[in-house]
Amino acid sequence: MNPDLLPEGLRDRLMPDAEAAALLTQRYLGVLASHGYERVAPPLMEYERSLAFRTDGYAKDRMVRAVDPQSLRTLALRSDMTVQIGRIATTRLADKARPLRLSYAGPVMTLAAGQLRPERERFQIGAELIGRDTVAAAVEIVSLAVEALKAVGLTGITVDFTLPDLVPTLANKAFPLADEAMIAAVERELDTKDAGGLAAIGADAYIPLLYAMGPLDEALAKLNAIDAGGALASRIEALRQIAAPLEDDVTLMLDPSERHGFEYQSWFGFTLYAEGFPSAVGRGGTYAIRSQANSVSHGEDEVATGFSLYPDPLVAAGIGHAQAKRIFLPLGYEPAAAATLRGEGWRTVAALDESDDARALGCAYILGTDGPEKIA
Amino acid sequence: MNPDLLPEGLRDRLMPDAEAAALLTQRYLGVLASHGYERVAPPLMEYERSLAFRTDGYAKDRMVRAVDPQSLRTLALRSDMTVQIGRIATTRLADKARPLRLSYAGPVMTLAAGQLRPERERFQIGAELIGRDTVAAAVEIVSLAVEALKAVGLTGITVDFTLPDLVPTLANKAFPLADEAMIAAVERELDTKDAGGLAAIGADAYIPLLYAMGPLDEALAKLNAIDAGGALASRIEALRQIAAPLEDDVTLMLDPSERHGFEYQSWFGFTLYAEGFPSAVGRGGTYAIRSQANSVSHGEDEVATGFSLYPDPLVAAGIGHAQAKRIFLPLGYEPAAAATLRGEGWRTVAALDESDDARALGCAYILGTDGPEKIA
Repeated sequence: MNPDLLPEGLRDRLMPDAEAAALLTQRYLGVLASHGYERVAPPLMEYERSLAFRTDGYAKDRMVRAVDPQSLRTLALRSDMTVQIGRIATTRLADKARPLRLSYAGPVMTLAAGQLRPERERFQIGAELIGRDTVAAAVEIVSLAVEALKAVGLTGITVDFTLPDLVPTLANKAFPLADEAMIAAVERELDTKDAGGLAAIGADAYIPLLYAMGPLDEALAKLNAIDAGGALASRIEALRQIAAPLEDDVTLMLDPSERHGFEYQSWFGFTLYAEGFPSAVGRGGTYAIRSQANSVSHGEDEVATGFSLYPDPLVAAGIGHAQAKRIFLPLGYEPAAAATLRGEGWRTVAALDESDDARALGCAYILGTDGPEKIA
Repeated sequence: MNPDLLPEGLRDRLMPDAEAAALLTQRYLGVLASHGYERVAPPLMEYERSLAFRTDGYAKDRMVRAVDPQSLRTLALRSDMTVQIGRIATTRLADKARPLRLSYAGPVMTLAAGQLRPERERFQIGAELIGRDTVAAAVEIVSLAVEALKAVGLTGITVDFTLPDLVPTLANKAFPLADEAMIAAVERELDTKDAGGLAAIGADAYIPLLYAMGPLDEALAKLNAIDAGGALASRIEALRQIAAPLEDDVTLMLDPSERHGFEYQSWFGFTLYAEGFPSAVGRGGTYAIRSQANSVSHGEDEVATGFSLYPDPLVAAGIGHAQAKRIFLPLGYEPAAAATLRGEGWRTVAALDESDDARALGCAYILGTDGPEKIA
């Protein structure tokens, strides 16, 4: 085997991408900090049980695991940071006033690659508003996510809303379904956008939901028309309120029955897209932070609203690349002059011996007696 | 077991430490970038063989390992990033002009805690000057490390030099030793500073080395006196050159036979200390990047000089903490006014409902009709 190769789905980020990724992260986090979100940083690994419990065991089989030689218990490498932030909020920060605004950034990893994504490691940045899952919380979180995307220069932003608990909500009132199994069956048919399937299981009333999607205004009108008993009235009003501050800036869409990737969301979810990027650049929504009975939170779940952003595709598209100029410092250069240049934003590359070549070392300038000179 | 607990040696970083760590990292990397070091970012995990080969298997048993379901080969989580940078330099960047200046930052982890360090995860930041292990390279690297430490506000900096291959060098000329085993035996006795042990194995000539330590000038004079055959003349001269630009700024020490932590260093190593920190804040030296025979580098080792910095203890000491002011935005606040405040560096905390308490949310100011008002 070739020792130069990396495992599939893992990769080196070289120059200038690695710096761009750091710069993007910095800008994203700067926006979150300016809105009062305070940074926390959980460890790379935790007890597997703790991570798996908080994700309902969802990604358990996909996580990197190792037996801890000290406790002899299984540790797992995080595949998502949101659950770690939930743990921090409900344990060490349980006594802090709510709403609690937290931000975070770091690598996450799965042992097995996903079906659609070959990469096994990616960078995650996010904000979580702990203690609130109200419309006001959703307004802040969606607006904040959009502001962050704009701050790094993304354009043509689309926010795609969804209502993750749509079926149980309707089943509870407007369109009764026999039991949990039937609710799950209807959700499965909606997931595959299968009208015939819905008819086959006798859930015809749910078929119009397949068509209540598209531009937000139109989709909400259709949803409103379907919503005979008013079961969705508050949800429709909530989406209108969340949309209001964004209408002029971004494209707003609704796919009310979309659940993929929203397994943990409660009543509201959203996906972020930007021009030039085929896949999502972020996603978020409302959710409950699960709590164990013997935790300081005594098994009482806490609500939250938040989002995660994934900067990797942005870097690949050239966003965030610094434009610093490199200048070569010939042997015997004046240290003070070089320091002044660095203070002005130049990147200096000092000659170590006669063989060093300014051009080959990426310098378009050389420090001459009268300052920077462009290399011919 | 308490589900709130983290495994021993792993921890959450809360506010304001997490932000401070990010800020410190940024400043360190900013200094490295200003000197032409370009950032690269290797993945968290690689094939275990690749990592272990480059560290002579040193930390293999201490690394987190997992079987890759795709290749069925063992992956390992990095316990050090330097070896990854070496791999990048000699494979994907093999064709780039030398000297190649690379920087990096990221978490590293071991499964088992070290004897002296309970933490299993720590943050590593570094610079590697690939293709040179000359005196000029050492001058640049040591000066750069000191400049980085100063840039984050460290004072009372001490640089402690060592000569990792001191014994083989002397054995080769001045004080002959029978074989490799004897060289190793002498090194072991020097490691434990055991004069009696050296006498017992008949290596009396090496005993004075135990006393050639302390402030650089004095220690170099002693070393010079020991160095009958002139075997160390070039090393002594090199240390003088490396020290010259630093003499006025930092305390310079020499412990020529110190090898702990310098297992991979060739002729030169150094440890960085700062006032208020009992343990090292960084270390570095010259070394060879090992290359496998079937690699693009055809098994030819390449020389390098570099250093690593560990910001965690600095954060714990309160270095890097931001002093941003938080201002509460009452319900119905003017969005434009809030945006202006954020532009000025304020951190805004918006009320979501009537129950939100400015004080409890960490705000000393509230946005009034005429701007920020200090909360009484």
